[in-house]
Amino acid sequence: MREVAIIGIGDTKFGELWDMSFRQLGIQAGLAAVADANLTSEEIDALYVGNMSAGKYIEQEHIGALIADYSGMARDHIPATRVEAAGASGGLAFRQGYIAVASGMHDIVVVGGAEKMTDVGDVLSGEIQATAADQQWETTFGATFPALHAMIARRHMFKYGTTREQLASVAVKNHKHGSLNPKAQFQKEIKLDAVIKAAPVAEPLGMFDCAPVSDGAAAVVLCPLERARKYTDTPVKVLGSGQASDTLALAHRKSITQFDATSIAARQAFKQAGIAASDVQIAEVHDNFTISEILAIEDLGFFPKGTGGKATQDGLTSLGAKLAVNTSGGLKARGDTMGATGIAQVVELVTQLRGEAGKRQVSGAERALAQNV
Amino acid sequence: MREVAIIGIGDTKFGELWDMSFRQLGIQAGLAAVADANLTSEEIDALYVGNMSAGKYIEQEHIGALIADYSGMARDHIPATRVEAAGASGGLAFRQGYIAVASGMHDIVVVGGAEKMTDVGDVLSGEIQATAADQQWETTFGATFPALHAMIARRHMFKYGTTREQLASVAVKNHKHGSLNPKAQFQKEIKLDAVIKAAPVAEPLGMFDCAPVSDGAAAVVLCPLERARKYTDTPVKVLGSGQASDTLALAHRKSITQFDATSIAARQAFKQAGIAASDVQIAEVHDNFTISEILAIEDLGFFPKGTGGKATQDGLTSLGAKLAVNTSGGLKARGDTMGATGIAQVVELVTQLRGEAGKRQVSGAERALAQNV
Repeated sequence: MREVAIIGIGDTKFGELWDMSFRQLGIQAGLAAVADANLTSEEIDALYVGNMSAGKYIEQEHIGALIADYSGMARDHIPATRVEAAGASGGLAFRQGYIAVASGMHDIVVVGGAEKMTDVGDVLSGEIQATAADQQWETTFGATFPALHAMIARRHMFKYGTTREQLASVAVKNHKHGSLNPKAQFQKEIKLDAVIKAAPVAEPLGMFDCAPVSDGAAAVVLCPLERARKYTDTPVKVLGSGQASDTLALAHRKSITQFDATSIAARQAFKQAGIAASDVQIAEVHDNFTISEILAIEDLGFFPKGTGGKATQDGLTSLGAKLAVNTSGGLKARGDTMGATGIAQVVELVTQLRGEAGKRQVSGAERALAQNV
Repeated sequence: MREVAIIGIGDTKFGELWDMSFRQLGIQAGLAAVADANLTSEEIDALYVGNMSAGKYIEQEHIGALIADYSGMARDHIPATRVEAAGASGGLAFRQGYIAVASGMHDIVVVGGAEKMTDVGDVLSGEIQATAADQQWETTFGATFPALHAMIARRHMFKYGTTREQLASVAVKNHKHGSLNPKAQFQKEIKLDAVIKAAPVAEPLGMFDCAPVSDGAAAVVLCPLERARKYTDTPVKVLGSGQASDTLALAHRKSITQFDATSIAARQAFKQAGIAASDVQIAEVHDNFTISEILAIEDLGFFPKGTGGKATQDGLTSLGAKLAVNTSGGLKARGDTMGATGIAQVVELVTQLRGEAGKRQVSGAERALAQNV
């Protein structure tokens, strides 16, 4: 396989973007990435798009061709492919683009992620998110995403002594990071007490333990590493990639306090990269709920199982620590845009590695990791 | 890139399969393909699934993980990815699986396609199919897939003198082929007169000019060519692959009597394969409407532009001719299952190339082509 580099990044603001359509979001992020890579559109060989459920959110499938069309790529008949894996749609689209370049099939590949979630009401929105769970064994019986994660949180608290304050400290940290990110949906800090006293959603999770639904898009440009310096002075090399699945229904898993898919994918990626978890200085992880970030930093190998909550409370994942987690604000404060999330994570990491992250810059970071669930 | 072979195939019957769920269909086809390849499930490295709109048909997204889970692959945490491109979802899933093996990222890859369309009523079914068209510029104004293809047919008749009888002869041929395929949705012949006198759907297209909605699934197993003989005595080599896009809305195209994406993808595939259209003895093409097959056999380079209708009427694409088109019965008679279609095409071609097609066997065929739109 050829070595691959990221040579361009682009994204939109995340939030309730009622003045922009799905296609406008996708195009804005894509064109920004192409401009950032100093490309002309004729040089693009293929497009991959991560999207979870435009069919249900905006009555439009065929998302790859749609974005190729309205960004002008259909004029050149660029191959365009949509990838879907619920909240990990962006991450898997990135991986397909990476494989396409690594294989030699394509040279210059744009990978985008987009979702338009806020044009439907809250009830329908919850139903659409639940299509990621097992329709036959979970959703039909009323399980929602917050309820499923509340069970994970309760079990983690029971098994490892994780506290309500530790859960809340994830939200406090990510809101603080988000306050430094001009593209985040929420750019203000919140206090621990406010998180704990917020309206309950599915106990122990309250409103501030849940990432908000958002509209937004993000895009990156990939090319063979050996050609990267033709386009940019700051190429970022893709060291490794891993992907794993698990049962859809929580009830079918051996443990609900550990995501085996995360551990296995991380092991694959670290092995390919030839590095260990301790070599990573920045990580964007999938904090769709506060408990999710605690599982993530444990399952990725950053902290021993059961200690993720304490590590967060102790500030070991905050800006300034040896490992900074979710410097963008994460899904919690930057916004949770399903199909866009995995790509937005990569955009944040590249921004950091280039030293262009402004007030939230991690100094001297050389290796970064994104985890998309 | 490594050379890739198809070492296993499996499919379900196509039709109104009200006694089987989406996941049952996917699993039945997948397990058949794995058994056909003489594999144990531990040897599988990755799964790709083509599906257009399970989110809308059965309220379930996250299709890759779903099929991995219920076929037992989640036990081994197999990476599972869903690909969507409307009616071409299966074809693009095949291409992603092909690239993954060619790249060296994975060795043994299962690629499936599945759709469950008949659990929703006819009106909703039509609406879901229309999510493949441009929601903003076509669907909103009432355009349906039959209406859009009726415009293509009318223009082709005006421009090239294609006749109503020639359109109908596509349906007559494909029903004849389908009558020889025990897995086809429609296994009976129809007469030219019946096609022409059938109830109009969108004139000039009548009921027998339109492929039926179907439930069904199909799967193939891919591996590096050099390892293929370890699993099967009849590996089929993938000679080439091409992919191209076009504008979603017909109104934005230079011509509606030619599908540029087909011509360009075919050129790529023929170039990679080092062969010409005249070297192909069997083709499965995307005949979702009778006019579509006429466009396909022209745009693929089998017949000069404007002569596809006459060629069909003259029997030049029937079983027994130098080029046999849609020996499975095509979408018209085997059934049009959206996400499964592109994989079912490959299953038919492999069956033919192995000499296992029974009453519809094309003798001595060595090169085959699938076109999925």
